[in-house]
Amino acid sequence: MTDLAGGYGALDLLCGETDADAFVHVADRGDPTQLFLTRFHGPDRPYAFVYELDGGPTDDREGTATLCAPALFDEQAAREFAGDRVLALGPDSARTPEGRAAALLDDGARVAVLDTAGARTLARLEDGGVEPITVDPAPVERARRRKTAGEVDRLRAVQRATRAGMRRAEAVLAASAADGDTLRYEGAPLTTERLRREVNATLAREGVSDAGNTVIGAGPTCADLHFVGEDTVRPGETVLLDISPRGPDGYYGDFTRTFVPGGAAGWERDVYDAVADALEAALGVLDRGAGVEGAAVSAAVEEALAAGGFGDAAAPRMTHGPGHGVGLALHEAPGYGGTLRAGDVVTIEPGLYDPARGGVRLEDLVLVTEEGIERFGAYRLDPKPRA
Amino acid sequence: MTDLAGGYGALDLLCGETDADAFVHVADRGDPTQLFLTRFHGPDRPYAFVYELDGGPTDDREGTATLCAPALFDEQAAREFAGDRVLALGPDSARTPEGRAAALLDDGARVAVLDTAGARTLARLEDGGVEPITVDPAPVERARRRKTAGEVDRLRAVQRATRAGMRRAEAVLAASAADGDTLRYEGAPLTTERLRREVNATLAREGVSDAGNTVIGAGPTCADLHFVGEDTVRPGETVLLDISPRGPDGYYGDFTRTFVPGGAAGWERDVYDAVADALEAALGVLDRGAGVEGAAVSAAVEEALAAGGFGDAAAPRMTHGPGHGVGLALHEAPGYGGTLRAGDVVTIEPGLYDPARGGVRLEDLVLVTEEGIERFGAYRLDPKPRA
Repeated sequence: MTDLAGGYGALDLLCGETDADAFVHVADRGDPTQLFLTRFHGPDRPYAFVYELDGGPTDDREGTATLCAPALFDEQAAREFAGDRVLALGPDSARTPEGRAAALLDDGARVAVLDTAGARTLARLEDGGVEPITVDPAPVERARRRKTAGEVDRLRAVQRATRAGMRRAEAVLAASAADGDTLRYEGAPLTTERLRREVNATLAREGVSDAGNTVIGAGPTCADLHFVGEDTVRPGETVLLDISPRGPDGYYGDFTRTFVPGGAAGWERDVYDAVADALEAALGVLDRGAGVEGAAVSAAVEEALAAGGFGDAAAPRMTHGPGHGVGLALHEAPGYGGTLRAGDVVTIEPGLYDPARGGVRLEDLVLVTEEGIERFGAYRLDPKPRA
Repeated sequence: MTDLAGGYGALDLLCGETDADAFVHVADRGDPTQLFLTRFHGPDRPYAFVYELDGGPTDDREGTATLCAPALFDEQAAREFAGDRVLALGPDSARTPEGRAAALLDDGARVAVLDTAGARTLARLEDGGVEPITVDPAPVERARRRKTAGEVDRLRAVQRATRAGMRRAEAVLAASAADGDTLRYEGAPLTTERLRREVNATLAREGVSDAGNTVIGAGPTCADLHFVGEDTVRPGETVLLDISPRGPDGYYGDFTRTFVPGGAAGWERDVYDAVADALEAALGVLDRGAGVEGAAVSAAVEEALAAGGFGDAAAPRMTHGPGHGVGLALHEAPGYGGTLRAGDVVTIEPGLYDPARGGVRLEDLVLVTEEGIERFGAYRLDPKPRA
């Protein structure tokens, strides 16, 4: 885990800005910031991370990082925690996580707490004799945004699993046969739910969790951006698969392709080609590397869609932004509103949707570097599913 | 979704107790209370639920429930929301979720907010011209605790999938062969990670997500209560599988069995028998139904373990409580500290662990009724894996 840095420099900054003596974060396993700071996959109840400004155990930082291990998790905390020490539960075990954190600090200590922290957490810290000061989480979000080599390794590995899931979906679609206006697979009509189970089983075999995120639309439901319901897959219509699993260290993948069983013609072909052109154009702009403006990427997408004949406000149209950062949260900084920097890992995902007919989205995940981008894995752009 | 009641009666109570005009909850998809109140599977960014005390659309409750749909989620919100109306994003779309909620309410309205809400949420509600009042979440937790028939259906279905996963694990173990001190499956050593992937692929085929929760220990790692790492599976040692997937409506299953490849003998047999006796004894006490004291269940577990020869503090010993409630969170009310009531869905999970040798845990999930319990599915108690 040592290759996943804890982002403690951000805490030095954050404490310095507010003249705080310490930083405390109380959250459960579902909180990406808690995972970022601790690398500990704890329980679904809150536990405390404490960073005390005391000169620190290394020259690189000002503080000492402590995890107050939740009950029943001592061994796992000792194994996983990225900081300096794990405090197992002592005779004070009846204390709240905030009470345990406050007990480590001097009476009256000024304690920086993210302004997303619960009102209950602030009250309990005060009860514990310290003074909570709410701070903007921006420094921590900036640290999460800039991926280290270890984090990039994790993201690359999860994205590899998404491609395996996509190949499975493509193989099922290729092995299905049209029967009137339905598509049949292994003797029964193919539905988005059957297809999802095939994809998710493949993700599981690759060692990642589908995380309830496998979006599959067919025809009109492709225009419903987060469709996880059941629909019939029909020949000649778009089938959109957006796969976003979570790897064992908590990092997400995110990958979208669209297929047309039997191959695309007419409207579906035109829409597919426009979106594929938009993806290639956006990747071309992103390949300028660190310093590229998100707005330039957005403009490239819009221009390519317009060049393909889809430039007006009528359907099919693009109903979402060009992409988002990915890390310990599926959606995190940066967006495409500012300048991209080295270490950003972002999706680029143009799409066109008509709620009456269908939709196409094509999404890749890339790392922005000083020189250009690293595209996480290649997967061809062809609407016809192949085995 | 109408069979999943929204728990709005709890909000009437909560507002009444604090003389509030409304209740507001701002949280993302990861928050079980947000899912309970809305039944909407939203994005991983916060959105607002508003309950206004205005006499309500029905005789059963005092208020009107509104979901302020997050951007890009209008259609899905309209399809899923269990309350009265969905407000799509209007020209005020730049507003924060709290700002959108406050805009629905009269200036100066008293707004009840759970005390777990973020400090940022309280500040933004104040900026929006209303007066936030933090309240204890107990009434909502009580409502979540008492499962409706629709909720029980979901829990039963997820638990069915856990059994399919367990059967797969058992089949893999049965098909494995001892080769010296390792167990081999399909030509390679069997590890906890290989076994987990088999289980998780089966869960996916059953339409549920492993949620990163599939705990599998082998020998000593069985004593690490939440082991999700890699270990070698060895003949004659305990293999503990604790499977807790999440179904499509957000409800969890929770199920544990322990096997000994080749069959249990000696220490493993003695420990298994004691834990199996403890499970049966605890189920017997639980079967008194609503009104049974949790302490009586705990006592039955302790007595059975002591009768099996494992009554002292030395290893192997039980290092955790007898169980917990399960619902939209994997761990929720009730625990075994008080009286069990009709509608409680709880695990009962005795275990004995020795970090030097191994561990056995056996866990069932039950619904407490007025008359007794409904045990969710039968699965035999036998340490020898069968195909």
